[in-house]
Amino acid sequence: MRDPQQTTLGIIGAGQLGQMLALAGIPLGVKFVFLASGNNLPASELGQVFDPLEPGALESFLQAADMITYESENTDSQLIRQIQQTHPVYPGEAALYTAQHRFREKTCFRQLGIPTADFALVDSIHSLQEAVTKIGLPAILKTTTEGYDGKGQFVIENPEQINQAWLAIGQREAILEAKINFKRELSLVAVRSSKGELAYYPLVENHHRQGILRTTYAPAPNLDHSLTQMADAYMQKLLQSLDYVGVMALELFEDEQGQLLANEMAPRVHNSGHWSQEGAFTCQFENHVRALLGLPLGDCTLRTPYAAMVNLIGNTHPINQAWSIEGAKVHLYHKTPRPGRKLGHINLIGEDFAQLKAQVSQLENNTE
Amino acid sequence: MRDPQQTTLGIIGAGQLGQMLALAGIPLGVKFVFLASGNNLPASELGQVFDPLEPGALESFLQAADMITYESENTDSQLIRQIQQTHPVYPGEAALYTAQHRFREKTCFRQLGIPTADFALVDSIHSLQEAVTKIGLPAILKTTTEGYDGKGQFVIENPEQINQAWLAIGQREAILEAKINFKRELSLVAVRSSKGELAYYPLVENHHRQGILRTTYAPAPNLDHSLTQMADAYMQKLLQSLDYVGVMALELFEDEQGQLLANEMAPRVHNSGHWSQEGAFTCQFENHVRALLGLPLGDCTLRTPYAAMVNLIGNTHPINQAWSIEGAKVHLYHKTPRPGRKLGHINLIGEDFAQLKAQVSQLENNTE
Repeated sequence: MRDPQQTTLGIIGAGQLGQMLALAGIPLGVKFVFLASGNNLPASELGQVFDPLEPGALESFLQAADMITYESENTDSQLIRQIQQTHPVYPGEAALYTAQHRFREKTCFRQLGIPTADFALVDSIHSLQEAVTKIGLPAILKTTTEGYDGKGQFVIENPEQINQAWLAIGQREAILEAKINFKRELSLVAVRSSKGELAYYPLVENHHRQGILRTTYAPAPNLDHSLTQMADAYMQKLLQSLDYVGVMALELFEDEQGQLLANEMAPRVHNSGHWSQEGAFTCQFENHVRALLGLPLGDCTLRTPYAAMVNLIGNTHPINQAWSIEGAKVHLYHKTPRPGRKLGHINLIGEDFAQLKAQVSQLENNTE
Repeated sequence: MRDPQQTTLGIIGAGQLGQMLALAGIPLGVKFVFLASGNNLPASELGQVFDPLEPGALESFLQAADMITYESENTDSQLIRQIQQTHPVYPGEAALYTAQHRFREKTCFRQLGIPTADFALVDSIHSLQEAVTKIGLPAILKTTTEGYDGKGQFVIENPEQINQAWLAIGQREAILEAKINFKRELSLVAVRSSKGELAYYPLVENHHRQGILRTTYAPAPNLDHSLTQMADAYMQKLLQSLDYVGVMALELFEDEQGQLLANEMAPRVHNSGHWSQEGAFTCQFENHVRALLGLPLGDCTLRTPYAAMVNLIGNTHPINQAWSIEGAKVHLYHKTPRPGRKLGHINLIGEDFAQLKAQVSQLENNTE
């Protein structure tokens, strides 16, 4: 167990996840430094930022930091391997290596007995045609790396679209996944500490539009307890097999038969866990820091019957209503507005689900 | 109503109150700058610090800031008057002028019909002797300015101590106050926005040792509703008569007859309101920022049946237990340990008062 008052945590990235990690970690006594390029970075006011484009910056960042974490599964795994020589890095390389490549990720799920949609690796127009024959249509072609928020994806509805799909994703290595008829999208955020302690947030329901998360409800409405048990069991296998340390998110589809299919994992704090800032006693950001330091994990249960999170995409107009909604909390990232950009979120808590849903709708109407 | 995303709030001081104001205000979109001297300042990681000892620093601080607030009632009122020429300063000069001088403060209470212990102004050994005759003994001699955490005070039990008391406080202007037999110490934290909106946190019970606040219970146990009404009414008079903007704390004694006597006010966020970080949906720090910007105020009610706050004085050892207490939250100020110094606090929430009290005792045993 590290003394938080003697710890400087280095974060690769200085976006909103870094900002919220620092906001949660500073009261624990931890200091933060960041490795990131750019102006107006959300985390830039919460610790020194080292720009990797400047000579010697990486070395200075590492000198300032006692341990390292990162904001994105697209973090350079070469860099992580290098840093691991001198610093503890959490989550470790195994998780990052798996999570940043869709084929490895799905294969990992399959090997652990975690159900997924049928999938196949594709690296040429020929292998794509074979994969379509094997998996059937409709199916989704996704680049193996670097896709997020719906980018790098193409839904193939009929065989005539195969060529178009292959061109659209840039003729890159990809996986073809069967398009599932799912009832809803759920996710599970959980945390494992460097001591091996495990804790699970409640299973939540996510609503996307244009590939971007818009709203999360915690807990997922009409939740059969067996679903939670199933999701927790999958998560436990994942965390333990990867000897994982920190917060992880697992995105799941619930199909018409009430089965859970794993879609992807994120080896980091996750947008679908933001509700925990007001909805749980210990938010995902604090628990990520606790996990890394080997401190006992904090309470992940709901503090309130219902919680929700509404993302602010493209503009922050809904905050004007939020100030007057009891149980609404504004979280802004200090980013310059741009279409499709996540600029903040509003968390809501409530005793009455219908009322909470009405408040969510009111806020959603005023976002992009 | 100011747009928080277009506002930089300048804080005079960069201690723990500044730190917690910034931690609460950054998610609202506000930026912070600080005017303070010294190393290892608790708020120094949350915005630029301008050192008033350096030439041009005040001008730069003011250039960076859109509006100004302060951490301490000992802030130089000359400085505030100067800044008011160019910037909104909240709380305004009237409150600061009143709060930083015990005689003016008690006179203000008296004029508003807020009961206090009997008191008299003292500016010589002769007037001290007269005051003792008028007020009786035991009585407390307090310097009119600059006393806090029990400093600058002397309890006179018998007439032989008059000379000693006068020397002990440095032969300075002082007030002599009747020593009350009070049952307990309470305080009320409330907030008034620049739009005139008012909100009150619940009345809390405070426990001091060696003149320093150790523990706060929210709400104050065994609270008769009439006490709350009385305290809120006093607070309303105070806030309105001073045209006050921001969070104010009013320290009160409850006497054996169940009457409230005002002891002092603090024109700022206050240690006895720290419990609100986890105990209320909107903490005092967020509400101070909201009040200054003219945003609607957030919910001040308890989110939980019981909450408590334990100060970490001199050392931070109790955090080692706190990690494992469900409902305990650590708040550290990043200060160098020193006897008698406030280094952080632990907030606790709970459903059961007896259990909460036991947890408080456990934590208190390990602090100074």
